[in-house]
Amino acid sequence: MITSIENRRTIRKYKEKDVSEVLLNELLTTASRAATMGNIQLYSVVVTREKEIKKALSPLHFGQPMVENAPIVLTFCADFHRFNQWCELRNANPGYNNFLSFINAASDTLLFVQNFTTLAEDAGLGTCYLGTTVYNPKGIIDILHLPKLVFPIATITVGWPDESPEQTDRLPLYGIIHNDTYKDYSEEDINSIYAYKESLPENLHFVEINKKENLAQVFTDCRYTKADNESMSEGLLEALKQQGFL
Amino acid sequence: MITSIENRRTIRKYKEKDVSEVLLNELLTTASRAATMGNIQLYSVVVTREKEIKKALSPLHFGQPMVENAPIVLTFCADFHRFNQWCELRNANPGYNNFLSFINAASDTLLFVQNFTTLAEDAGLGTCYLGTTVYNPKGIIDILHLPKLVFPIATITVGWPDESPEQTDRLPLYGIIHNDTYKDYSEEDINSIYAYKESLPENLHFVEINKKENLAQVFTDCRYTKADNESMSEGLLEALKQQGFL
Repeated sequence: MITSIENRRTIRKYKEKDVSEVLLNELLTTASRAATMGNIQLYSVVVTREKEIKKALSPLHFGQPMVENAPIVLTFCADFHRFNQWCELRNANPGYNNFLSFINAASDTLLFVQNFTTLAEDAGLGTCYLGTTVYNPKGIIDILHLPKLVFPIATITVGWPDESPEQTDRLPLYGIIHNDTYKDYSEEDINSIYAYKESLPENLHFVEINKKENLAQVFTDCRYTKADNESMSEGLLEALKQQGFL
Repeated sequence: MITSIENRRTIRKYKEKDVSEVLLNELLTTASRAATMGNIQLYSVVVTREKEIKKALSPLHFGQPMVENAPIVLTFCADFHRFNQWCELRNANPGYNNFLSFINAASDTLLFVQNFTTLAEDAGLGTCYLGTTVYNPKGIIDILHLPKLVFPIATITVGWPDESPEQTDRLPLYGIIHNDTYKDYSEEDINSIYAYKESLPENLHFVEINKKENLAQVFTDCRYTKADNESMSEGLLEALKQQGFL
């Protein structure tokens, strides 16, 4: 499994072969061994195999083809609803309609997600993490009928790999580690940390086709713009209010 | 590694044996293979070995003894500062001082955390996840000198295990899985999902010593109260503002 983590790649193309319910359930069960707040397990997973629902979800993930083509789409949700319902049925007074509780549940969810991903990949499956889940949460909430205190956090498409892409680069470890306290970066540090990424042929190509001066501008002007981030932040905060977490 | 995930337990007591920098760096490097938004790696990890800093961090984690006793305390932070600095040095216009960017960075961080945990445990180390990190973020930000756009998300204490606790229970899988869309729980569902947890001797003992009617009330009245959650939510939101994410 160390090898499978070391060698991991995002897989976006899958064979037309199903992933059995038995295997999926086994992986999810083992994944639930991840640490969880007070051992409450503040998450749910919606397993989508139905073509029509995948089709409805697809535009919310900007039409990324994995959503319609993967045998399984998993939407992992922060879930305080189930626990809340248990409390109400037991004459206990729950107080989880607040922002801290959202962060607690989202944390539980993401630890569970990553455990699942590791186990799935170790079993030979390919996965793709869709960060788009938090870009359009309201649409996903509607389609999946998520009640209050349930919030979609991450979507994973899962299937048997039908591609073997190159592994992507990572920053050198010294760029992300700080000893005892956070040491701020000098200009030299930043140049050194990003040098390899900036030198990669595929990144130089992105700079060229987007007619930018450098890779950073590809990110800020094309991929993750201030205007998009600000408008999606508003949608995200509204959805948190709607679901009762703000 | 499947076995190490299946058998995992939180370890709170560690041997007086150090964890080498070489091993730690190897684990963190491999952990960084986790999926990350746009391959940007929106996280940093502060490695605390210094006794004095652990001592300062301890009360912010409600004095849990692992913080002072573990050879290493890792504070994993959502970090848009490094990327932001790179953008500014490249004449690119970053727009990441917003809530969506916080959620993106926090997600990256938690996937990295869980990958690290899996690898550390597979190497024989014991870990404890401290959810208290988001309860008192301002204090942690001060002690670790976290600049704007850096936010502490999770703390993990790490060391060689000096205990072998029983494994804790988990909800049955049918309690957390939903097919195609979210199916709301009936009273019967809830009773069935929580039956095993409610029947455990240690939980019956908690009910008794806290003089409560049932386990749910132990959670709502003693462990995670409405008043605490609401006041800590405010602190959390203020800290997000302070760090430039709201």
